[in-house]
Amino acid sequence: MAVGIGIVGAGTVGGTLVRRLIDEHDALEAKTGLDLEVRRVAVNDVAKERPFTVPDGVLTGRALDLADDPSVDLVVEVMGGTGVAAEVVMGALRAGKPVVTANKELVAARGPELFDAAAASGVSLLFEAAVGGGIPIIRPLWETLAGEQVRRILGIVNGTTNYILTRMSEDGASYADALAAAQRLGYAEPDPSADVSGADATSKAAILAGLAFGTWIETAAVHREGIEGIARADVAFAAELGYVVKLLAVAERTGGGVSARVHPALVPLHHPLAGIRGATNAVFVEGPSVGELLFAGPGAGAGPTATAVLGDVVDAARELLAGAQVAPRIRLAAASGVADFGAIPTKWYVRLEVADRPGVLAAVAAAFGDHGVSIKSVRQEGRGDRATLLVVTHRAAEADQQAAVAAIGNLDVVAEVGAALRVESDEP
Amino acid sequence: MAVGIGIVGAGTVGGTLVRRLIDEHDALEAKTGLDLEVRRVAVNDVAKERPFTVPDGVLTGRALDLADDPSVDLVVEVMGGTGVAAEVVMGALRAGKPVVTANKELVAARGPELFDAAAASGVSLLFEAAVGGGIPIIRPLWETLAGEQVRRILGIVNGTTNYILTRMSEDGASYADALAAAQRLGYAEPDPSADVSGADATSKAAILAGLAFGTWIETAAVHREGIEGIARADVAFAAELGYVVKLLAVAERTGGGVSARVHPALVPLHHPLAGIRGATNAVFVEGPSVGELLFAGPGAGAGPTATAVLGDVVDAARELLAGAQVAPRIRLAAASGVADFGAIPTKWYVRLEVADRPGVLAAVAAAFGDHGVSIKSVRQEGRGDRATLLVVTHRAAEADQQAAVAAIGNLDVVAEVGAALRVESDEP
Repeated sequence: MAVGIGIVGAGTVGGTLVRRLIDEHDALEAKTGLDLEVRRVAVNDVAKERPFTVPDGVLTGRALDLADDPSVDLVVEVMGGTGVAAEVVMGALRAGKPVVTANKELVAARGPELFDAAAASGVSLLFEAAVGGGIPIIRPLWETLAGEQVRRILGIVNGTTNYILTRMSEDGASYADALAAAQRLGYAEPDPSADVSGADATSKAAILAGLAFGTWIETAAVHREGIEGIARADVAFAAELGYVVKLLAVAERTGGGVSARVHPALVPLHHPLAGIRGATNAVFVEGPSVGELLFAGPGAGAGPTATAVLGDVVDAARELLAGAQVAPRIRLAAASGVADFGAIPTKWYVRLEVADRPGVLAAVAAAFGDHGVSIKSVRQEGRGDRATLLVVTHRAAEADQQAAVAAIGNLDVVAEVGAALRVESDEP
Repeated sequence: MAVGIGIVGAGTVGGTLVRRLIDEHDALEAKTGLDLEVRRVAVNDVAKERPFTVPDGVLTGRALDLADDPSVDLVVEVMGGTGVAAEVVMGALRAGKPVVTANKELVAARGPELFDAAAASGVSLLFEAAVGGGIPIIRPLWETLAGEQVRRILGIVNGTTNYILTRMSEDGASYADALAAAQRLGYAEPDPSADVSGADATSKAAILAGLAFGTWIETAAVHREGIEGIARADVAFAAELGYVVKLLAVAERTGGGVSARVHPALVPLHHPLAGIRGATNAVFVEGPSVGELLFAGPGAGAGPTATAVLGDVVDAARELLAGAQVAPRIRLAAASGVADFGAIPTKWYVRLEVADRPGVLAAVAAAFGDHGVSIKSVRQEGRGDRATLLVVTHRAAEADQQAAVAAIGNLDVVAEVGAALRVESDEP
């Protein structure tokens, strides 16, 4: 029995998906036993030239009609955004049709509502492509690791920023030059702000936290810092200290609840994430029983993303043919609260521009100590009028770290707090 | 509604699984919505002390009765072997009960028959723990990558051998010393032959090939070479040439068909698998659309393995509650033939002990050339009576490589072929 697929959006990912569903139809059927038929492709402009050919009547401008279209058994949303896309997805779920989406923004923004709609209809809402592109991470989290009390997830989930930081680290490039290179190569948009500000990664951090901990964190509640302020000097100093700077999405369960945050961080060179270079993405999962898992691969691009969407389509089609009410894969537990950001324990790297004279270190150390932050290592670079002090602290509450650094910035002997970045490592 | 679990085997993995199902019952229910109840634990010796406590009547010596036991909805087989375990699994599937197993040997040996039995009953046979322990790899292959025409899988799927090779590479240890260290630390059995001979990895290679290509390769048809013959010298020479020696499970689709093989190989230092150290496992998947994916984590141990089994249990229980016939996740295509091993193209590293005199290199190069093998690089170590020649070839058919090396071994100027190992890299 053929399964009728309705696809909303035919941009880079949608176009590739339609082409593969048509060109690889027989190979897919041989491999999966499923006869997947493209029945509708909803686009803004039906007259525009496309990289695929579909029979008359398949292209349509009426995305919202797919929910009630009897030829469509399963809806794929690859148009993006949280406007029409939300209506399309909700409409299909309410009409009892499984939905596959690659839309991280939509899932992060309206996850609980969408899951409820899917559960009410007994159909699946699948979104493997929403985090990590072609890397299987959604399904491992909610299936293979269903029985694991995941403790922490560290993700490099934005290829643009990882490419920029890799250039800064490996070529000694400045942020501006590395960004320009990323734009030349098509890794960064002409307006790169969604990537470099960490905004793209916050949606993914929220989704990872939701799946791992069953607590949905609003995207706006994800603490966010971008990489725009990263100085070449700190990337070089980090390397001297045995670290590499990465933009991390962190989803964590601590005593105070669960949390999600996105910020640049120093990662020890021996950590598996330190070796993730260029536009590659990776997700590192820690759990008490399973230990440490690393998933790495292409985090974006039409090919990998279409593969992830296709995997979800195959899965949803199998379920459809089984003809059952699908049990929800995710249960949001209202019980686990969101941690107070100020209470989350982190380690910090602080670069201070100081006067090189006796008593400077004592004053800095006292200021850290006054706020309950203990110092792991200190290193002085340069001598004379102005020296640079590199401090790495032990773990302490975020609020205490911030207060300590603010106090240090006010010390007479400190000319400037050049940088204050978190350090993510297993040591206390 | 509670789901009744029957577990066969209560060794390291089984004992951990029973304990977690009991101790973490409420956390699991909160996370998954499933009420999983341990109803039977079949063991050889019901009188033996166990690391868990179960109500009277749960422990039983009659594993084969679980199939028809009305209190058991789902059977978990963690006893291992292909004897009683096969009867338990087949019996349960025939009785219409989903089965979760961690038994690589059984799945490799009887996969097609087991899949048929599962399909006939419309239930699932899940075995995430059979390859890579806690690393999610089975499910990503047959779900997330269902729409990908996977080209090649390279796996480090045996922690014992990877530990031994890591010690040889990082400490310059001999094979014997590294093996002894592995035994002291419990990474290797007193009789290490199943691991060091590559036998353990062949089952996993066969399973990976079957899932990726839909062609089931008999374990006995998987080409196998172990690490017993690896000399400290070759590990050191490999490092000088920019490689590290790993025991690889390779599942590959070439022009001549699909193949699976297990052997030590030189992996370039920049390859993601080169950084997989100690007892860690990793699977590297290459596909035309998805690019390159890496999955890494603990390949063995009670905790990770029990987590993988538990994920399968959750999945199977969800399906049970949905009350549907389950569509088979795997279709074995009789169409894709198994490649002739001699025709598979590989690159080789060959160490030759030669007389250091004019004409030696010419004779060696001519012998390679006579068999259609072209040389990528040659390096001479030492001078005098006896020198060492390190040759790395370009890709050529296995049979030609073997014939060339045999011919070279017969040359007057060659005292000994010290080593001949395959090189797995992306270069031609």
